[in-house]
Amino acid sequence: MNQPAGRPAEGPAPASAAVIGTGLIGTSVALALRARGVAVWLADADPASARLAADIGAGEVIGGSAGSPPRVSTDIAVLAVPPDAVAATLAAAQDRGLARWYTDVASVKSQPLAQAAGLGCELESFVPGHPLAGRERSGPAAARADLFLGRPWVVCHGDGISAAGVAAVAGLARACGAEPVLAGPAEHDAWVALVSHAPHVVSAAMAARLTEAPDGALAVAGQGLRDVTRIAAGDTRLWLQILAANAAPAADVLAAVGADLIAVADELAEAARGRAAAGGPAPELKLLAALLEQGGAGVARLPGKRGGPARAETQVQVVIRDEPGELARLFQAAGEAGVNIEDVGIEHSPGLPVGVAELTVRPEAVGPLTEALAANGWPVRR
Amino acid sequence: MNQPAGRPAEGPAPASAAVIGTGLIGTSVALALRARGVAVWLADADPASARLAADIGAGEVIGGSAGSPPRVSTDIAVLAVPPDAVAATLAAAQDRGLARWYTDVASVKSQPLAQAAGLGCELESFVPGHPLAGRERSGPAAARADLFLGRPWVVCHGDGISAAGVAAVAGLARACGAEPVLAGPAEHDAWVALVSHAPHVVSAAMAARLTEAPDGALAVAGQGLRDVTRIAAGDTRLWLQILAANAAPAADVLAAVGADLIAVADELAEAARGRAAAGGPAPELKLLAALLEQGGAGVARLPGKRGGPARAETQVQVVIRDEPGELARLFQAAGEAGVNIEDVGIEHSPGLPVGVAELTVRPEAVGPLTEALAANGWPVRR
Repeated sequence: MNQPAGRPAEGPAPASAAVIGTGLIGTSVALALRARGVAVWLADADPASARLAADIGAGEVIGGSAGSPPRVSTDIAVLAVPPDAVAATLAAAQDRGLARWYTDVASVKSQPLAQAAGLGCELESFVPGHPLAGRERSGPAAARADLFLGRPWVVCHGDGISAAGVAAVAGLARACGAEPVLAGPAEHDAWVALVSHAPHVVSAAMAARLTEAPDGALAVAGQGLRDVTRIAAGDTRLWLQILAANAAPAADVLAAVGADLIAVADELAEAARGRAAAGGPAPELKLLAALLEQGGAGVARLPGKRGGPARAETQVQVVIRDEPGELARLFQAAGEAGVNIEDVGIEHSPGLPVGVAELTVRPEAVGPLTEALAANGWPVRR
Repeated sequence: MNQPAGRPAEGPAPASAAVIGTGLIGTSVALALRARGVAVWLADADPASARLAADIGAGEVIGGSAGSPPRVSTDIAVLAVPPDAVAATLAAAQDRGLARWYTDVASVKSQPLAQAAGLGCELESFVPGHPLAGRERSGPAAARADLFLGRPWVVCHGDGISAAGVAAVAGLARACGAEPVLAGPAEHDAWVALVSHAPHVVSAAMAARLTEAPDGALAVAGQGLRDVTRIAAGDTRLWLQILAANAAPAADVLAAVGADLIAVADELAEAARGRAAAGGPAPELKLLAALLEQGGAGVARLPGKRGGPARAETQVQVVIRDEPGELARLFQAAGEAGVNIEDVGIEHSPGLPVGVAELTVRPEAVGPLTEALAANGWPVRR
């Protein structure tokens, strides 16, 4: 293959697809494909979820209306179900002859593949996949057609995986706006253990210390702690399943992080004892210094942005009073100036009668917006 | 004192202040005080830094121009220097008779206080303090008059600390827009070990694993990893000093987090071996399940918004068209119903003509808002 390393040969977008599982990821795949004109069929263990997905334009429920066929045959079936359900869902879909190719979106790859082999699935038509995208909200109502835009989408290759199937799944990923990335199943699992599964547990372990924190400590907590612990608020049941399915690679990373923390804690405790005894100079903390340096170097290796071509946007800050109608007047002034506000964030400082609204607009709208707001008496800051 | 628990009696804003150390925090204090009309004198070990602070309106450099006195006497001196420099800076400032009261802004309190006692400083006029505010950028050019707005500012009380001095420093904090919070020095240090110093090391320990990550793993990294590791990019030298100065409390937290991670890693490794040997069912991961649950509970205890106690709030979702004026009409309808919208988030899917606005309101406003929007033709979902 004359492909760049790690980039698969890409087939065309599918003409038709079945999406089994209409949660956040499945419904977002369906919306993205619908936007490309692909015929999409939907199914979910919860019929209400499939109907909701259909209602927001993600496709047609299989057997969901008098006019739709109870059985369909498509170019590709996307099994957007939790890791533990992939193998059984694949077996059932293959029994129905649902598609030419099958792929999944689970965040672990080796175990579902082994389970599918165990269930006697046809592995010739199954190409494991994993779009690296998500949101804190879940369910079809949170789905977005642009969820995968510019994001990596791992397509598994290797022993027993069809090259033609890899091209078909890469074409699916591209049709959703994602960047296909090739990896072997075990290779993928080691990657996500490091960049996703272990960080989740590390975040939870830090957040767990807060359960018995004094109120005063919580009151002085800042953005740093919030960032470190944010992902610990995720779906516990799903994460338990993901970690169980990727246990060995996750264990390796967590053991290394835990050992570093224990070593640094020992060094700090030793230093505190030494200083208390001697009243002496600042202790030398070689392990801690090395870990902090290494941490900085690790962060520096991360690619800069949440993948994908961000839209050129600019923020405009406006001081507003914290009272009913204030935002209405603000947005009315913007609307009358023909300015479409792409996003809004509001900062209140408790106890103050004013806040700051941060309006996100296209760069060309900054001038008209600033003028319109200033003309209506709002203090504006670029 | 007839004060709410944890809230000090507050004196008036100072009429004059000296700020020693014109980095981010010192210059921001100076700018905030200048905005209140306080006379501010500036000094820094690096004269260029003090001059830059003066140039952006933070005050006048002590002895910095022909017209300014080489010695000044002020109501309060703010020692905005690193933790290790507080005691010596205090001694020098007291030798010059710089102020009636002295306070610092260091992120540890017990050790500088002990060092000041060791240097023979007058502890009657010294009240340790710690404004909980910061930015990723440092130096006087990054300073902001509103850096402390609504943020907690710990004012130390307890044995040997003057109650009149506490009131003076609380008045200073309030003059900068902050919320004064009382704590003993050791109490403060335990708080910040938990919510700031230990999280920094945990973030660095996770980030350190990335130094030898395959490029493919980094390419599939998402926002979660970026959030967990963001603070690891901080100033290594400063953090080493902070952790050395708060070694024992930080060690306690890090030892607990490290032990939890080691235990979970052992459990995962054991489960992986068991499954490999038996090909059996999903392993039961009791320790991991408990840690994930506890992590979720810990995150839930964090106050909701930047600074200040979380207000009870509810989200209402409204489908809107992606066009100018749509938000104005929405907010006008809300305003006419007397509803104050606390926050707004907007979700667009590119290529779709609609978006979803998520409006945050007080719980009692949900009914009136929903009715008002429905009456004006917007599809609303709770």
